[in-house]
Amino acid sequence: MTNAKTDVLTIGNAIVDVLAQTDDDFLVKEKLVKGSMRLIETDEAERLYEAMGPAQLISGGCAGNTAAGVASLGGRAAFIGKVADDELGHFFRHDMSSVGISFPTAPLKEGAPTARSMILITPDSERTMNTYLGACQELTPADIDRETVEGAAITYLEGYLWDPPKAKEAFREAAAIAHAAGRKVALTLSDSFCVDRFRAEFLDLIRSRTVDILFANNHEVVALYQTGDLDTGLDALAGDAALAVVTLGAKGSLVLRGEERIHVPAPPVDEDIVDKTGAGDLFASGFLFGHARGAPLARCAELGSLTAGEVLTHIGARPQTSLHALAEQQRLLEGLAA
Amino acid sequence: MTNAKTDVLTIGNAIVDVLAQTDDDFLVKEKLVKGSMRLIETDEAERLYEAMGPAQLISGGCAGNTAAGVASLGGRAAFIGKVADDELGHFFRHDMSSVGISFPTAPLKEGAPTARSMILITPDSERTMNTYLGACQELTPADIDRETVEGAAITYLEGYLWDPPKAKEAFREAAAIAHAAGRKVALTLSDSFCVDRFRAEFLDLIRSRTVDILFANNHEVVALYQTGDLDTGLDALAGDAALAVVTLGAKGSLVLRGEERIHVPAPPVDEDIVDKTGAGDLFASGFLFGHARGAPLARCAELGSLTAGEVLTHIGARPQTSLHALAEQQRLLEGLAA
Repeated sequence: MTNAKTDVLTIGNAIVDVLAQTDDDFLVKEKLVKGSMRLIETDEAERLYEAMGPAQLISGGCAGNTAAGVASLGGRAAFIGKVADDELGHFFRHDMSSVGISFPTAPLKEGAPTARSMILITPDSERTMNTYLGACQELTPADIDRETVEGAAITYLEGYLWDPPKAKEAFREAAAIAHAAGRKVALTLSDSFCVDRFRAEFLDLIRSRTVDILFANNHEVVALYQTGDLDTGLDALAGDAALAVVTLGAKGSLVLRGEERIHVPAPPVDEDIVDKTGAGDLFASGFLFGHARGAPLARCAELGSLTAGEVLTHIGARPQTSLHALAEQQRLLEGLAA
Repeated sequence: MTNAKTDVLTIGNAIVDVLAQTDDDFLVKEKLVKGSMRLIETDEAERLYEAMGPAQLISGGCAGNTAAGVASLGGRAAFIGKVADDELGHFFRHDMSSVGISFPTAPLKEGAPTARSMILITPDSERTMNTYLGACQELTPADIDRETVEGAAITYLEGYLWDPPKAKEAFREAAAIAHAAGRKVALTLSDSFCVDRFRAEFLDLIRSRTVDILFANNHEVVALYQTGDLDTGLDALAGDAALAVVTLGAKGSLVLRGEERIHVPAPPVDEDIVDKTGAGDLFASGFLFGHARGAPLARCAELGSLTAGEVLTHIGARPQTSLHALAEQQRLLEGLAA
C-alpha cells in the first residue's frame, strides 16, 4: 500500500468540543449517563450550556481526532466532514490544516452552525458527551471526494455517521470507492449506545465485508452481540470480522484475525489520567498508521497504546506533543514503510 | 468595606485566548519578542493564525482572569468589558456568568468581532501574546455601570485599557465614581511594553492618587522608572504610590506602603509549570480578595501567591480547581470578613 497518497482518510462528524470540568452531582441532576454520548437539539444545547461551568473549546470529533493523531505520528492524513462557514467552523478547519491534514470538504454556507459537543469531565476523568450535530446533518455523498478516497491506503469511518440522515449514504459511497480502488475500509463502532441504535446495520457492514477492519471497545462488543459475556462477544466478532481490534481500557487491546488473537498490554501511563476524551480515537490513529505502513499487527496495537496514552494526560482529544517523537523514542517506527 | 455588594470589580479588555504550543524557532521566524504582548490588526491576525499550530480557545483578558480568580476564591466579583454579539462573545460571557461574575456590559451589536489574543506557548512555558482588540475598541464611559462601581470595595483596572481609544475615559469615569463612593481603585501596569507606551500617564495616575493600589512586576517597575536597577525603581515607587504590590516571579512578591516593605516568598509549585499565562492576573485575584475582606497585607500577598501558583500548572489563565478549597487547606481564609 505504499503507493497511497494518503495513509489514512477519516470520515466523520466535524465537531468542536466544549470541555468543562464538573462534579458527579451535576450529572445526577441532569440525569446524564456517565461515559455516554447523547444527541441533543438546539434548545437543549442552549439550556445545558447555560447550566454548565466555564469551558474550553478544542477541535474534536472522533474521526477528526484520529486524523490529528495520524498527522502527529508523521503520517499523511485526510479528513472529510461538514462544518459551517462560521467562527467554530474556521477554528476546526484551522486545527486540521495547521497540522497538515488534507480537508477537502466545502463548508455549509447556510443553515445550521458548526457542530459542538458539550463534554463534561468528572473528577474520575470520565467524559460525558452531549452533542449538537448542526452542520454535520448535511454531510452527503456529494462530499465524498473521489480522488481523496482512491488515494488513501485506509478509509476510516465512524459509527456516529449513522446518526445524521444522509451521512450513511456518504459512508457507503466512500466504502465502494475505496474497495474499487483496492483500498481498505475501517469502521469504529463509536460507542455502545450507538451500537444499540444501529446494531443490525453495523453487523451487516461487518458480515458483508463492507468493512475490512473493525474497531470497538469491550463495551461495544458486548452491546453488538447483546451478551453479558465479553468472551462470547469476542468469539462472535472473530467469526464475523475480517480483522477486529478491541480496546480493553487499562487491559490493553486485542487483535482478532480468524483464529489468531494478539493481546497487547497497555503501557503504564506515567502521568495522571486527566481526561479520557479521545483515547479510543487516538488508539485508532496509532493502529491505522502502523497498518497503512505495513507494520505487523502487534506493532500496530503498540502504536495505538502509545498514542492513546498521550491524550489521557491532558484535557482535549488531540495530541499536544509530537507522537512521532514519542513513537521514535519507543523504537516503534523502525522498519516501517516510508 | 464589608458593606460592599461586590468585593472586586475588574475593568479591562474582554478577550478570548487562542492558545497554541510552539517552538522557539517559530518566534524567531515571526520576529516576536518572547513574553511580550503586541497589538495586531485584522490582516496580521489572520496571517498569524494561518501560520500557527492547532489551538484551544479559553476565555482570558487580564481583568477577566482576575475576576475569575476572585470568584473561585468565593468572592463576589464583577467585570466590565466589551465583547461583540458573536460566538466568541457568547463564549466569553458564559465563562463569566457560569462562575457567578456579574457582567453588566452590553455586547457590541455591530462592528468588530470579539477580541482574541493569539498566545504562543514555548517549551519554557513562556507566553507571547498577539492581541486583536476588536470590540474592545468600543468600550466607552457609557459602559461604566455606576451602581456596579459604587457597590465594589475595589475597582481594578488594567493598564491595557490605555490602548483602545475611548477606554481611558471609561477608566477615569470609573475611578471618579469609585472614589466618590468611598471605594478604592487599583491599577495593574499590565506589561513593560504597555508602560513604555503610557509611562507619563501611568505615573500621573499613581502620583495624583487616582489609583490607590498599584500592581506591577519587576520588569514593569524598571520600565516605569527607566532604570536598570530594580531597587532604584522600588524606592521611587514606594515614594509615589499609596500602596504598591510588586511580583518578582519565583522570588515571590513585595508589598510597599510608605516606609514599610513586606516580602512574601512564592511557595514552591508542586507540579511542573506548564503555562505562565495569567499568573500575574491571578496573583491580583488573591491579593485583592484578601484586601477587600480586610486581611493584613502579608496575608493578601500569600493569597496572591497561592492563586498564581494554581494557574501555572495548566494551559489557560483561569483557575481549573476551586481556589477557595486551596486557600482553605492553607488556612489563608481564617479570620477574613464574610
